[in-house]
Amino acid sequence: MMEKTLTGWQKQPRKLNIQGEIERAIELITGEQVDLTASGRTDAGVHAIGQVANFKTNSNLPTEKFAIAINSKLKKSIRIQRAEEVEERFHSRYNCKQKTYRYIINNGEQGSAIYRNLEYYVPIKLNIEEMKKAIKYFEGEHDFKGFKASGTSSKSSVRKIYKTNIIEEGERIVIELTGNGFLYNMVRIIAGTLVEVGLGKIKQEEIASIIESKDRTRAGKTLPPHALYLVKVEYE
Amino acid sequence: MMEKTLTGWQKQPRKLNIQGEIERAIELITGEQVDLTASGRTDAGVHAIGQVANFKTNSNLPTEKFAIAINSKLKKSIRIQRAEEVEERFHSRYNCKQKTYRYIINNGEQGSAIYRNLEYYVPIKLNIEEMKKAIKYFEGEHDFKGFKASGTSSKSSVRKIYKTNIIEEGERIVIELTGNGFLYNMVRIIAGTLVEVGLGKIKQEEIASIIESKDRTRAGKTLPPHALYLVKVEYE
Repeated sequence: MMEKTLTGWQKQPRKLNIQGEIERAIELITGEQVDLTASGRTDAGVHAIGQVANFKTNSNLPTEKFAIAINSKLKKSIRIQRAEEVEERFHSRYNCKQKTYRYIINNGEQGSAIYRNLEYYVPIKLNIEEMKKAIKYFEGEHDFKGFKASGTSSKSSVRKIYKTNIIEEGERIVIELTGNGFLYNMVRIIAGTLVEVGLGKIKQEEIASIIESKDRTRAGKTLPPHALYLVKVEYE
Repeated sequence: MMEKTLTGWQKQPRKLNIQGEIERAIELITGEQVDLTASGRTDAGVHAIGQVANFKTNSNLPTEKFAIAINSKLKKSIRIQRAEEVEERFHSRYNCKQKTYRYIINNGEQGSAIYRNLEYYVPIKLNIEEMKKAIKYFEGEHDFKGFKASGTSSKSSVRKIYKTNIIEEGERIVIELTGNGFLYNMVRIIAGTLVEVGLGKIKQEEIASIIESKDRTRAGKTLPPHALYLVKVEYE
């Protein structure tokens, strides 16, 4: 029995059960019914381009052929980037050390027709310097209770953010967060809060107290998922 | 009466009458029925991100407000980038000096789920050095009869290509052509021919004789329009 990991499944904002689709494709290739375990769930509509998942197989197909073989059985909206063999005790979720998400804002004068489903358009010029100051308050260990979807499970909402960044690429503003885990909607709410800072509706120096308040109503709105990317999942 | 130009209409590969949609939006803004004249037609499905079009108006809306006003009446798949006032004798098609097209190939190992409708995926590794030599043969004035869709009008098929380029951007290969005009399907057939050079099916040194032969069957196939971009239209 060998243990495989798959890296990178990508999807368009559309109702597809990615896990089920990949399990079905693996069955077509190997004849085996496998349980695919991903590093975690992403919000519906998010592009999980750096997702990692593992499964067990007895197939004697060489590991380096798995990605192309599985892709041949998948819709084009889901692509496996590569497969690797791992130790049998490897677990995509439990062994995950950190994840990196990106939220892509288009802050150009008119927005883009072509990328309209891949980025979030803000027509008003954002103050990026204030956003850069604001994002630093999210670094470190915090209780992000005020930055998760209401009604989600009551387990600990403490998460540690290791690294934050705001990257300007022409008319695009990319918000990047690396942490040990993210709550449901958390990146989208942080991005929404940073946009309000960029618009001057929230002052950057208020962020610390907004986080501390654990009050969802003080944070910004939940931005739509189509501009959010899970770009990297890292292991020990 | 003032003469306006609009720059940049973009579309998704979908059946939309872009000209009609924009004329309708202008009518909603100005109350006037205008004739919009573009620099030329693009093949259906092509992204005309650098398209230029002109129309006459008596509206007293300031020129710099036109793009945002028209966009407010358009579907998000069409965006005007900017409007400028021009001399009344300006004509988007007759005064056009040169156009630049890009054809985007994804030559990565598995292709991209997210950009699948915006680029052309070639799973086999292309020989870029050979493609770079091949594209140079297209520069200069040639009769491109062998590089146009069959059955199209019988006017002169002589065109002048001023500049060519092949740009490598990670797993992407971008073919760029600047010329005084392009025949129907011409860029897509040139791109198809270059892909065959990259695959070793056509030798780069054969290109001169393929062009000279004016024989459509000797050139490569017509690649799909969804990876083609009209990026720039330039005037005197």
